[in-house]
Amino acid sequence: MTTVLKLGGSVITDKEREGTLDEAGLAGAAEAVAAASDGLVLVHGGGSFAHPRAETHGVSDTHGTREAAAVTDIHDAMTDLSDAVIGALQERGVPALPVDTLAVASRDATGALSLPAGVVERMLGEGFLPVVHADPVVQEGAGATILSGDEVVTSLARSLDADRVGLCSEVPGVLDADGAVIDRIDSWDDAAAALGGSGGTDVTGGMAGKVRTLLDLSIPAHVFGPDGLEPFLAGGAPGTAVGGG
Amino acid sequence: MTTVLKLGGSVITDKEREGTLDEAGLAGAAEAVAAASDGLVLVHGGGSFAHPRAETHGVSDTHGTREAAAVTDIHDAMTDLSDAVIGALQERGVPALPVDTLAVASRDATGALSLPAGVVERMLGEGFLPVVHADPVVQEGAGATILSGDEVVTSLARSLDADRVGLCSEVPGVLDADGAVIDRIDSWDDAAAALGGSGGTDVTGGMAGKVRTLLDLSIPAHVFGPDGLEPFLAGGAPGTAVGGG
Repeated sequence: MTTVLKLGGSVITDKEREGTLDEAGLAGAAEAVAAASDGLVLVHGGGSFAHPRAETHGVSDTHGTREAAAVTDIHDAMTDLSDAVIGALQERGVPALPVDTLAVASRDATGALSLPAGVVERMLGEGFLPVVHADPVVQEGAGATILSGDEVVTSLARSLDADRVGLCSEVPGVLDADGAVIDRIDSWDDAAAALGGSGGTDVTGGMAGKVRTLLDLSIPAHVFGPDGLEPFLAGGAPGTAVGGG
Repeated sequence: MTTVLKLGGSVITDKEREGTLDEAGLAGAAEAVAAASDGLVLVHGGGSFAHPRAETHGVSDTHGTREAAAVTDIHDAMTDLSDAVIGALQERGVPALPVDTLAVASRDATGALSLPAGVVERMLGEGFLPVVHADPVVQEGAGATILSGDEVVTSLARSLDADRVGLCSEVPGVLDADGAVIDRIDSWDDAAAALGGSGGTDVTGGMAGKVRTLLDLSIPAHVFGPDGLEPFLAGGAPGTAVGGG
């Protein structure tokens, strides 16, 4: 049983203060993971550690940089955050190990991601919990671009043939036009209708894009807030269940 | 033209003091690399950053650990050293990027190494200089074992079909029984004779093993001391030339 869990950067960092942890958010997430960490791969975003720096350097998922110092500046912030996550997990007895994304992922000239999962699989096989993160990655013809945590999740879930995927962010699930959590989304038509019929305009902070990606994945996925972390890891279905049916 | 260069840990760290750089050694190496860094892959050992910690935790290339905290303790020392190497290179205008070995390398149950070179190749293609290092890596059935810089060199030289390999350590080359640098070694018979006829007993600090590995590699290799770094990178043949003829 393999589970890929994404912790959004907003759950573990303080959005208002650059490079600052959300200590309570991180502790809560680490407690939940410590209670049920078998077969788990953790992926986390960059939050206030990486986004401001990426912006400073003018780097995004489509716009690259050829300045090595810009790449390491963003990357160092991400490894600091990853070290904090791993520390919080190890303190609670979870055998977490870092998987430095810059070293293992890259993109071709079309932007297509290559992320060999061999090391992650071996870590799981040896009882370790791999922690992967958003990061700058080298892209053919573009220097280095940003790889999001969501892209890492999708790639690893496919490569590992994961049984379940969880996306934990600040939002308690996929919300309908009235702000209520939608229980279940099985098709893009459902989603477009529920998200207010405007599937083209992503007014929900990237949620429509996430939903489309999760539907394409064909693995049972759940979108939930921090309160959903413990029930999700216990096998429950907090927030919104997406696809995989 | 691809060159794989190994900087021994003894060249860039202070052997007498744990976790301390040899600032002059590192600066000298960085200067030499800055003068000729095209198509170069740099690999470095652990020196006084990693060896004492590996010993404390009882981890070697054959004896593993299942304690995640032991793995990250050794690994963190290696990334500190790698950060120092990358900083020294970037200061001198070299577009160096880290390749975190723990994330990309692992061993199967027989100890055979898997180290996909895709990211290193893409870094080279984009004009970056990849810096790889000795590190703990996950091994099937053993938790995590130590991967030496020499093993990284051999694996990458093969995968990248490198044109030249350089091993820079404290010693000015492969020494004969009288302590003189041997110019050229083309076969194991040469080596065994020159190393004093005792091919089985490795009295030269692992040198006989290195020579055997380099002969197996069938790529022109050079073994030299810090003074040989600049001539080697300029295309010369300092120290001892091994195999590849």
